[in-house]
Amino acid sequence: MSHASIPEPRNPDFDSAVRASFDKHVMMETLGIELVEIEPGRVVLEYAHDERFTQQQGFAHAGLVATAMDTACGYAAMTLMSEGSEVLSVEYKVNFLRPASSTRYRAVATVVRSGRTLSVSDAVTTAVDNDRPIATMTATLIAVDTQ
Amino acid sequence: MSHASIPEPRNPDFDSAVRASFDKHVMMETLGIELVEIEPGRVVLEYAHDERFTQQQGFAHAGLVATAMDTACGYAAMTLMSEGSEVLSVEYKVNFLRPASSTRYRAVATVVRSGRTLSVSDAVTTAVDNDRPIATMTATLIAVDTQ
Amino acid sequence: MSHASIPEPRNPDFDSAVRASFDKHVMMETLGIELVEIEPGRVVLEYAHDERFTQQQGFAHAGLVATAMDTACGYAAMTLMSEGSEVLSVEYKVNFLRPASSTRYRAVATVVRSGRTLSVSDAVTTAVDNDRPIATMTATLIAVDTQ
Amino acid sequence: MSHASIPEPRNPDFDSAVRASFDKHVMMETLGIELVEIEPGRVVLEYAHDERFTQQQGFAHAGLVATAMDTACGYAAMTLMSEGSEVLSVEYKVNFLRPASSTRYRAVATVVRSGRTLSVSDAVTTAVDNDRPIATMTATLIAVDTQ
Repeated sequence: MSHASIPEPRNPDFDSAVRASFDKHVMMETLGIELVEIEPGRVVLEYAHDERFTQQQGFAHAGLVATAMDTACGYAAMTLMSEGSEVLSVEYKVNFLRPASSTRYRAVATVVRSGRTLSVSDAVTTAVDNDRPIATMTATLIAVDTQ
Repeated sequence: MSHASIPEPRNPDFDSAVRASFDKHVMMETLGIELVEIEPGRVVLEYAHDERFTQQQGFAHAGLVATAMDTACGYAAMTLMSEGSEVLSVEYKVNFLRPASSTRYRAVATVVRSGRTLSVSDAVTTAVDNDRPIATMTATLIAVDTQ
Repeated sequence: MSHASIPEPRNPDFDSAVRASFDKHVMMETLGIELVEIEPGRVVLEYAHDERFTQQQGFAHAGLVATAMDTACGYAAMTLMSEGSEVLSVEYKVNFLRPASSTRYRAVATVVRSGRTLSVSDAVTTAVDNDRPIATMTATLIAVDTQ
Repeated sequence: MSHASIPEPRNPDFDSAVRASFDKHVMMETLGIELVEIEPGRVVLEYAHDERFTQQQGFAHAGLVATAMDTACGYAAMTLMSEGSEVLSVEYKVNFLRPASSTRYRAVATVVRSGRTLSVSDAVTTAVDNDRPIATMTATLIAVDTQ
């Protein structure tokens, strides 16, 4: 989905709004997930492989991979929301393309639709060392007025 | 989906196979997710609310809720798999019905279809104190031969 | 999901509202899909196997099965919406459990969450002759004010 | 997902295999859905707006839009399958971005993962006159040996 269709941010301070929300997001710190890029309609997160977050065969847990993409989808949507809006996940769907057995992962989320109430974001997770896709997600997000 | 349609377990030792796999599942220990029930075609997991796994508004993170349901779906499917099979998630879809703001959560997964290769499980997460549904999931799982 | 949690209909005339909408729904007539039951939070549709709606191996097309469930999910949600609301599909996810090779199919949808804006419904399609499940769906619906 | 990662077709006659299957696909003829492009890992279908396939507000039915994308996803996957394989849908998830109120629609499907058993395709539907996205899909497909 090209960026050409992404509307102007409704909130000129979208960058600091997303960073402030991310900083209160304890789960991100617990899982070692870092915010590495924010632009209108697009957010990139990264995290290291960590034995604490593996499943029974030693791969990164599907839930870790999904959590990072879900968060990236939410914040990508939030970059285009009005000032004072927070974002909640309505639903998401994730496909696992190959086992996560790398040393570092990157979740890139892009907004597909930005509505006043509902937004849709797509995300893909790749292994940072070889850029191979590990999983994809489509998420529906809702704007929640916090003011 | 009634239990009437659940086939006999292919592996008579399904209970110990699931427990052995769960015990190697580091992510479960990290997140404090416990295995509380196993029967053919059905698995129940529980976990306490934990500030480390919250999102920016203090609710349990969607990713935590999804991780527990995903794991429950996988092990529910595994109860009906052949001896020597492990389970991997192909994909899942989760709907969040209301914010997770309880003290303890229960994820119950039930097998909808058990095939030789592919299985489908449904799950629901409830707050243990009031039994209200928080989220639902449908997952597609694949049997992986480990022998 | 038990019916115990289904709220009272907001619109006492939900039955005629759903029937009036269904009657304007040309796709239903084209595909031969009939409305057979309406109650608060639950709608049942049925349709015959029809060679015109088959795929390359002679099974009922996945798209037919999904269309009936999507419509059932929408109208189940609409039974609990306010007067003057119409329903639109935000998204859905469908799993195909076995090929549709019967003579008649039944799609049963049940509301899982009924919100002022967003609702979630689950559906299952069974073969009428043997009651075996063919497919399941979870759909997110939005109420649209038509007044 | 760039085309760079699409493997060589396993079946050199993928084009005629897909066309032969599509021609037996009665549902496509019934709905007026045409095959307009086939290449390795990518299939494009088109269809006209038709009052017979509308919902209660006069938009093209979500089920029509999903049926075309599901079929495009399946045939995109089939372009990379072995000779003698047919394709069946395991599951799909569709998001509706805006109402389908154009005169002609285009469904473009691209393979995200092509495995020996399971494949994953993404699709997008656009209005042909203004190229605006109407809906997106992710589908999981399975190869079925027909020989």
